[in-house]
Amino acid sequence: MKKAVVLLSGGLDSATMFAIAKRDGYTCYALSLAYGQRHSAELAAAIRVAKVLGASEHKTLALDLSTIGGSALTDTRIAVPVQPSGGIPSTYVPARNTVFLAMALAWAEVLGAQDIFIGVNAVDYSGYPDCRLEFIQAFERLANLATKAGVEGRIFRIHAPLLDFPKAEIIRCGLSLGVDYSLTVSCYSADSRGRACGVCDSCRLRKLGFLEAGVPDPTSYC
Amino acid sequence: MKKAVVLLSGGLDSATMFAIAKRDGYTCYALSLAYGQRHSAELAAAIRVAKVLGASEHKTLALDLSTIGGSALTDTRIAVPVQPSGGIPSTYVPARNTVFLAMALAWAEVLGAQDIFIGVNAVDYSGYPDCRLEFIQAFERLANLATKAGVEGRIFRIHAPLLDFPKAEIIRCGLSLGVDYSLTVSCYSADSRGRACGVCDSCRLRKLGFLEAGVPDPTSYC
Repeated sequence: MKKAVVLLSGGLDSATMFAIAKRDGYTCYALSLAYGQRHSAELAAAIRVAKVLGASEHKTLALDLSTIGGSALTDTRIAVPVQPSGGIPSTYVPARNTVFLAMALAWAEVLGAQDIFIGVNAVDYSGYPDCRLEFIQAFERLANLATKAGVEGRIFRIHAPLLDFPKAEIIRCGLSLGVDYSLTVSCYSADSRGRACGVCDSCRLRKLGFLEAGVPDPTSYC
Repeated sequence: MKKAVVLLSGGLDSATMFAIAKRDGYTCYALSLAYGQRHSAELAAAIRVAKVLGASEHKTLALDLSTIGGSALTDTRIAVPVQPSGGIPSTYVPARNTVFLAMALAWAEVLGAQDIFIGVNAVDYSGYPDCRLEFIQAFERLANLATKAGVEGRIFRIHAPLLDFPKAEIIRCGLSLGVDYSLTVSCYSADSRGRACGVCDSCRLRKLGFLEAGVPDPTSYC
């Protein structure tokens, strides 16, 4: 079976993407990053999801981006917004997906995997620049220049299967693949038990997704 | 003054590059990565170099690549080679410079810096794929797609001023800028006091550099 490194945040999108990677025949190595995020409850969710969906291995790597800050998710002095800002919101974490993909690339090269999955989404998303097709394509190009494997002709592919999916479609897809969304945490302000605030940008998009999909929302709210 | 993030390993090349960035008028923010490298004495060297050369700030971020392994530098079960291998040697660390540049990009964005310096070198080097111009150019392109700053037109530049310098020329340049190479550690097998083995690939290139530059080698050898 083909091996893949799957970036798993513990949220709705990456859990769905994990199920897609499995459906497509990949042996999945889940990678989560403890990057100093305020919503660290998502890491416990990632452990649950990796176990239930059958990861061959699940690593949680520590990398404290809170020492850099610059985001509402990594600097507790910056409030998590509860209204759309109209631009790129303060929950944007500088270079986060570049860091995540770099780590996934490192592990993929060591595993002998050529496929990396990332659950970015460019439809119902928050306007983050590192959730766009151009970014994914540029990283794929970089990956093949950056590595011994790439130089030797073992081509890396970066998969972003949710890129063009509206949230409701992601949910329908995940449900058809048996994903239990009650295991996942999307909220930026989730409490230590993983209960969601219901009002942040991420909660808003998730709620709307369940509503538009016409299925019950299994999220635990505070 | 223009701000720059300068990746500082503690070795000869990055110390020289730091001096070049200062000469060129940058306020330098030094970034070192504690990535689980066996030669962690280089991190103490980086602290010395940052202090002596006048970094505005020096961060050492922890990110344990030894949990991924795949390199003689991050897996102690793999021996550090003492003979050139003819290909990319086992000291290659999968995706290391991609990870380092990603971290530098994150900090640069938060600092409001547009310039990132990395001390890669494509002449007297070990054949690492992430020390080539194509890689640097691909990362620069990625950086401007990946970030809020890039989207808003604050263009990032990745500087690799040593790329085409033979080691002897790097040494001459550094000496002309007042770099004290006795502060630096290049050896892959340096002991806890920073004393070099004298026989690994990195020591071999460094020794040869001092020899070809016609200047005394201030390295402490075991």
